[in-house]
Amino acid sequence: MGDLLLRDVRPLGGASVDVLVRDGVIAAMGSGLPRVAGVLEEPGAGALLLPGLVESHTHLDKTLWGLPWYVNAVVGPRLADRIDNERRFRAGSGHDAAAQSLALARAFLAQGTTRLRTHVDIDTDAGLRHLEGVLRTRETLGDAMELQMVAFPQSGLIVRPGTAALLEEALRLGADVLGGLDPQAIDGERDASLDLLFAIAGRHGKPLDIHLHETGEEGAATLAGILDRVQSWGMQRRVVISHCFCLGDVDEAGRGRLLERMARLEVAIVTTGTASRPVPPLLACRAAGVRVAAGNDGIRDTWTPYGRPDMLERAMLLGLRNNLRRDDELALALETVTSAGAEVCGFADHGLAPGCRADLVLVQARNIQEAVVAHPERRLVVSRGRIVARQGSLISSATIAGSTTGA
Amino acid sequence: MGDLLLRDVRPLGGASVDVLVRDGVIAAMGSGLPRVAGVLEEPGAGALLLPGLVESHTHLDKTLWGLPWYVNAVVGPRLADRIDNERRFRAGSGHDAAAQSLALARAFLAQGTTRLRTHVDIDTDAGLRHLEGVLRTRETLGDAMELQMVAFPQSGLIVRPGTAALLEEALRLGADVLGGLDPQAIDGERDASLDLLFAIAGRHGKPLDIHLHETGEEGAATLAGILDRVQSWGMQRRVVISHCFCLGDVDEAGRGRLLERMARLEVAIVTTGTASRPVPPLLACRAAGVRVAAGNDGIRDTWTPYGRPDMLERAMLLGLRNNLRRDDELALALETVTSAGAEVCGFADHGLAPGCRADLVLVQARNIQEAVVAHPERRLVVSRGRIVARQGSLISSATIAGSTTGA
Repeated sequence: MGDLLLRDVRPLGGASVDVLVRDGVIAAMGSGLPRVAGVLEEPGAGALLLPGLVESHTHLDKTLWGLPWYVNAVVGPRLADRIDNERRFRAGSGHDAAAQSLALARAFLAQGTTRLRTHVDIDTDAGLRHLEGVLRTRETLGDAMELQMVAFPQSGLIVRPGTAALLEEALRLGADVLGGLDPQAIDGERDASLDLLFAIAGRHGKPLDIHLHETGEEGAATLAGILDRVQSWGMQRRVVISHCFCLGDVDEAGRGRLLERMARLEVAIVTTGTASRPVPPLLACRAAGVRVAAGNDGIRDTWTPYGRPDMLERAMLLGLRNNLRRDDELALALETVTSAGAEVCGFADHGLAPGCRADLVLVQARNIQEAVVAHPERRLVVSRGRIVARQGSLISSATIAGSTTGA
Repeated sequence: MGDLLLRDVRPLGGASVDVLVRDGVIAAMGSGLPRVAGVLEEPGAGALLLPGLVESHTHLDKTLWGLPWYVNAVVGPRLADRIDNERRFRAGSGHDAAAQSLALARAFLAQGTTRLRTHVDIDTDAGLRHLEGVLRTRETLGDAMELQMVAFPQSGLIVRPGTAALLEEALRLGADVLGGLDPQAIDGERDASLDLLFAIAGRHGKPLDIHLHETGEEGAATLAGILDRVQSWGMQRRVVISHCFCLGDVDEAGRGRLLERMARLEVAIVTTGTASRPVPPLLACRAAGVRVAAGNDGIRDTWTPYGRPDMLERAMLLGLRNNLRRDDELALALETVTSAGAEVCGFADHGLAPGCRADLVLVQARNIQEAVVAHPERRLVVSRGRIVARQGSLISSATIAGSTTGA
C-alpha cells in the first residue's frame, strides 16, 4: 500500500485540492498541502477526481476477453438455450477460468474499477473449477483490487442435485456471498428452492445475491417470497436482487408495494439497465428509498458479444435506459457505480474523504455529469495509494503482481 | 480529391488487400498492387477497413459541443417542454449555429463519418438563421464531408403561421430535404398538416424526412396517413420516417400491415435505438423488407446531455436496444450506419469497391462484429481519397478548410 501526494485535482468537480495518501488511505485533502519527505508527488492538472469505481455484478469466469472472436450463432431465445450453449462450449473448449478472469479483472482495473463483485459458476459439470480459477485471480491481484466472489448456481439448484453441496464447499473455500437463480423459472419450485438457499446462507453466515430474471407476476411472487424470508431469517441489509426485471413490468401499485417492503428490509437492487427489456426504474427505486447499484453482467462471452469493463460507460447506459437527462439525475447514475455500489456490496471505506481507502480515478471532464455521458479515458488510476494505470493502461504487470506481497 | 495507395487492410474483415485511390475514387483493390509514381502509400498494418460511416439523423445546429457545460434542469416530461426550453435558451444565449455545427461536424469526421444528414431548425423566432449557419459549415467542409440539410419545422408547421413560407425559402436557399413533425401531436390537424407538407415537397421536387414521435394508435394513424400520401403523390423511395416510435408499441398485426405497406412504397426508417422507449424493432423491419438507418439525434444540447459523434457506438446502442447478439445480427447493426444509411439518405457511390467514393475508415478490430461492440479508436479516416484524421483526431484544420477549394 502506497504513499502519494496528488496535486490539483477536483473531487467530484469541486474546487481544486491536493490529496495526501499515507499507507493506502486518504490522510488529508486541502489546498496547498505541504510537501512530505519521501512521498511521491503526482500532478493532477486540474482533472476531475472520482473515487474508485465499483462493479457490482459481473461474471469474470465466463469471459472470452482477449481470446479469438467467438462466433455467436446461438439458436433459440430462451435463457435455458444460452445456459445449455455455454455448458456445451465449455465441455469442448477447455475454458480456463483463472486466466480469463485475470485478464478481464486487469482490464477493469485499468479503467478505474478497484472493487468488483463477480458471480462464479458452480455446477455439477464444472464443479469448483471456476471458483478455484477466480480464487487464483484474487490472490494474484492482491491489494490492487478488492474482489468479491458469489457462489452462483448458474444451471439451477434443486433441479440439479449435487449443486447445494458444491455451493457449501465454495463458501468454505472462500466465496464471500451465496448466489441464487430464478427459483420458479429455473428450479420450478419457488418455495423449496428459496428455503434451501436461505438455509445454506444462514448455516454459513453469508449474504445473498439472487439473480431474478423472472418477469411480471411470476417474478413479483418470487420477489415477495424472498422478502418474506429476509424478514423471517433476519437477513435485513444482507440480500441483493440482481436484475429484478419484474419491477420493470408489474403494475405501478404492485411495484410500489414491493419497493416499500424492499426499502424497509434494506434489500438492494443491482441492475445493468438492459436496453432490450423492462428493468427496475431507477428514479422510482431511489424515491422509495431502495439502494441501486450497477453492473455490466457478462462481458464478451458465449451469452453476449457486448461489454467493456468501463463502469462510467455502464453509468451512461443506465442513464440512457432510465432517460436521465437532468444534472441531478446524472449524479444518481454515477452513484450506482461508486458509493451505492460500495454500500450494496459492502465494500468498506469507499469515498473521497480522509480515512477512506485511497482508490482514486482521474478523468478529463468538467464535472461528474460529463464523466458519465462522455466516459473519457482514465488519465490515472490509484488503488490503495499506488498508481496502477495511466491513460487507460496498466503501468506494468509487475506492479500488479508485486502488490500480492505488498504491505 | 486525393490519390492514395493504402496497403494491407481487411475490407469488412476479409482477406488483406491493397486499395488504390485515384481522384477521390477507389480505382482498384487487390493483393500486391504495384506502386504508382507520385501516389502516397499508407500502411494499413492489417487493420479492419470499413466504408465511410453515415449519420442519418442528427441536429448539428442545436449542439452545445465544446461550449461550457449546459446545466440541464428542465422541468416537465413532455416534448413541448423541451421545445419551449430550447427556444427560451436560444433567445437568451445568442446561440451561433454556424460555429456549433462546424465544431460537431468536424468531430463526426474525426470519428469516420463522411456523410451526414442534419435537421436544421426553421421557426418564426429564429427564421433562417440556423440554416444560414449550417450552409456556412457545408461550404467550409467542402469535399471533406457530404452534408445533407433537412429544413425542419421544430416548433410546428400549421400551429405556427409563417413557418411554411420559411420552409419554402429554406428549400430555395439549398436545403436538400423537407422535414416534418408530428402532424397530430404538435400541429393538431393530421390531414391538413400532411397535405401542406406533401404539397410543399411536391412543389419543390424535394424528398421528405418526417419526425414521428407519436405513439401507439395515434402514431399508427399518422403513419397510415403518410403512406396514403406517398402513394397519391408518387413519392415512393423519397420519404423517410424518423423515430417512428409507434412501430414499437402497436400490436403485432397492425405493425405487420404497416411494415408491409412501407416496404411496398419503399418508405424507410431512421432510428436512434432509444433505450428508454418503444422503438421500431430492427429485425422485424428488415424481415419485412423495410430499410433502416441509424442516427444519433441531438448531441449535447438543451434536450440531452448525451451523445458522441461516433456511428460505431450508435450501432452498438442499436444492437443493445434490439438484443442483437448473433454475428449475423451484428452485421445488420453495422449496415444501419454504412450501406443502409447511404441508401436511405441517397448518398451515392458508397461502399468498398472500385468506382465507389474513397471514404475509408481503419479500426483495430478482428471483424465487423468487434468494430460494433468495441467501437475502437479510428486509426485512419480517408475522405474522398484524402487522409483527414489519425487516431481519432483531425490531422489539421488547414487540411479540412483547404478542401473547400480542392479539386
